[in-house]
Amino acid sequence: MRGMDRTARPVIGFLTDFGLDGAAATCRGVILGICREAQIVDICHTVRKYAISDGSYLLAGSLPYLPVGVHVAVVDPGVGTQRRPIAIATRRGDVLVGPDNGLLIEAAEALGGIDSARILENRAFWLPETSSTFHARDVFAPVAAHLAAGGASVEELGPAIGPADLVRLHRPAVRAADGVLDTFVTYVDSFGNLRMAGSLDDLRVALPNALDGARLTLEFRGGESTEAVRDIARFARTFGEVDPGSSLLYVDSSGRLALADNQGNAAARLGVTAGIAVRITRT
Amino acid sequence: MRGMDRTARPVIGFLTDFGLDGAAATCRGVILGICREAQIVDICHTVRKYAISDGSYLLAGSLPYLPVGVHVAVVDPGVGTQRRPIAIATRRGDVLVGPDNGLLIEAAEALGGIDSARILENRAFWLPETSSTFHARDVFAPVAAHLAAGGASVEELGPAIGPADLVRLHRPAVRAADGVLDTFVTYVDSFGNLRMAGSLDDLRVALPNALDGARLTLEFRGGESTEAVRDIARFARTFGEVDPGSSLLYVDSSGRLALADNQGNAAARLGVTAGIAVRITRT
Amino acid sequence: MRGMDRTARPVIGFLTDFGLDGAAATCRGVILGICREAQIVDICHTVRKYAISDGSYLLAGSLPYLPVGVHVAVVDPGVGTQRRPIAIATRRGDVLVGPDNGLLIEAAEALGGIDSARILENRAFWLPETSSTFHARDVFAPVAAHLAAGGASVEELGPAIGPADLVRLHRPAVRAADGVLDTFVTYVDSFGNLRMAGSLDDLRVALPNALDGARLTLEFRGGESTEAVRDIARFARTFGEVDPGSSLLYVDSSGRLALADNQGNAAARLGVTAGIAVRITRT
Repeated sequence: MRGMDRTARPVIGFLTDFGLDGAAATCRGVILGICREAQIVDICHTVRKYAISDGSYLLAGSLPYLPVGVHVAVVDPGVGTQRRPIAIATRRGDVLVGPDNGLLIEAAEALGGIDSARILENRAFWLPETSSTFHARDVFAPVAAHLAAGGASVEELGPAIGPADLVRLHRPAVRAADGVLDTFVTYVDSFGNLRMAGSLDDLRVALPNALDGARLTLEFRGGESTEAVRDIARFARTFGEVDPGSSLLYVDSSGRLALADNQGNAAARLGVTAGIAVRITRT
Repeated sequence: MRGMDRTARPVIGFLTDFGLDGAAATCRGVILGICREAQIVDICHTVRKYAISDGSYLLAGSLPYLPVGVHVAVVDPGVGTQRRPIAIATRRGDVLVGPDNGLLIEAAEALGGIDSARILENRAFWLPETSSTFHARDVFAPVAAHLAAGGASVEELGPAIGPADLVRLHRPAVRAADGVLDTFVTYVDSFGNLRMAGSLDDLRVALPNALDGARLTLEFRGGESTEAVRDIARFARTFGEVDPGSSLLYVDSSGRLALADNQGNAAARLGVTAGIAVRITRT
Repeated sequence: MRGMDRTARPVIGFLTDFGLDGAAATCRGVILGICREAQIVDICHTVRKYAISDGSYLLAGSLPYLPVGVHVAVVDPGVGTQRRPIAIATRRGDVLVGPDNGLLIEAAEALGGIDSARILENRAFWLPETSSTFHARDVFAPVAAHLAAGGASVEELGPAIGPADLVRLHRPAVRAADGVLDTFVTYVDSFGNLRMAGSLDDLRVALPNALDGARLTLEFRGGESTEAVRDIARFARTFGEVDPGSSLLYVDSSGRLALADNQGNAAARLGVTAGIAVRITRT
């Protein structure tokens, strides 16, 4: 496959919501049984259960930093239903393998965009026996391993499916204008930082004073409480610019806006979770 | 060793209850110091502390999917006492290394059965200095690494011990007859699904109507509460057959019965833990 | 580099407080992109957030058991401030890469001592674009990978810095005399065992009867409570010498004193955390 270095050990990124007991290891075993030289890179196995959006965020954030490879991602509340198993070839040369539930799309876009996609119907690349509850082991891992080992091509996996026919996550639009930045929390990281859609440019458009240190009000809506949750913060370029415990709005390592408490946990303090809406205005 | 591919990088499966801080890494370091090409497959290091039964379940469930190798498992409340350190050669060709407390037996059976076993007494394959509290580092990891590297044979590890003399876990019998299936919870997985001993055949024998969708009562006894805990569920082949939040009895990916809440956590809802008895009857 | 086996796959130990979501994997990807043959050994990524002292303890405990290599450690509350990024060459032949905040010093001492140190200023070995919040990805991981791949030498990384100019953690002194052993909790491990500074020799000097089984009082001061917390224990050589649930003072696998509840969690029972002072006397 284009971009993949066939002289080096194949890299297989691997993300699931399986938690830390044996399920991910079972899949690693299946992969190594087919592709003994695989360099498996565990991305995350503690994705919030069934949280396709969280998995998508993590996958899209990390894969651009991995070598070109075959990557398996499984957050799959619909396992055993009619949801399709798919493989997506990306323009960078990676292949993403997993369920057709939106999990893989943002990662594919981060890897140059979708080149082509296939529905996994060719059982020659599955385990001989399959269950209705563990497609990661029975379908996704072996398909990825056959691709990585060079024993299968994407075209052989099954019928083509057009990019427009793939399931996509609903993502609210970011609106930046006239003193208001409307965005949403894309992910709560392990430090409790609230990662948001929207870039520094969006902030600059909506709130030109923000970059000069104006006080900002963040209003979170859509969580368990019917009341909006409010927080006050200033924009800062580094954590060190504010005192420990103080909150700051900053540009995170993926170039998006985020809210953090320096050496604290903003998500726990505010009770905010992924997916909820944020409105940023001048205080 | 029979079945082990000596031309490929040796696979070493690794399971402990050490948690996620540095103890497992210390053992990985010891292994790589002796067998630099080892492909270590971490199975689980968050086994419930001292829960030999949980470790046994996870090991037996995942090892059949790993390539033939040398595998180290350590859930070892008796470290530093008279419990014996052992290695078990399996009929598939794997060698299992760990304490003689029942942890390794179900895995050996899942790998074709016990071929032979040895007590680890030959200190030539241990670290030069040993502690009384960290045999994983000092004994089990180096022994496994020497085996994997081809620098030791099972016969050299110490005196033989007969399979009948190995410590085994007590497992309640499964009884299926006359409208009653008596089984027990073997493991609570990270989704909160209750894995049970007993197969689809057992269910079919005890409750023929179950497969046609009859309502079933599950009665759990033996937990912290003196009262039995009851739940109602129907048998289903996939999670998708029931609504999110509803419970289902299904055949899990290892071919055993399990109770799950679709996209929920049955163990948390019912307060049920591994080891307790389950009686399934028609409602 | 001296001591590093250039014919084998390079070993890269890796420790952070990033938690289990995608940040550590992003760094692993960066490493593999530069040094495809790296054997990355994850030491711990669940170091207590911002707890430089915990990270230092874990690193110093595990690295001596890893093969000589290049190791990356990142617990870095000062990321984006003036704290310096450094590399320390050790007498054993390893190179430690991370922030100059004390995290690396005890590990360097455990690896034979500091041979030389450099401030990471040569951007040729960084990622082309850097952020102000993720130096692990942008600076530390790529520098370590270039070193491991042989594409950089320590001398090329930036200007030398003398060992005396490196930031060091404050560690209270251990005092052993006249029936009193004054020490402190260095780390609470995943079993809830309280690891302490101070050796068996210190105990012998302060409390000669302790080794004969005298009852000891441990008094913990400096936690959240203003009251001292007290516990009674006897010295034992193995966990098996005391009943399950009983506490024991023992010599841990690194040769230091520790307090444990056999098959229990002493830290949870006593409410004690790392860093607090312990006074041991005869009851």
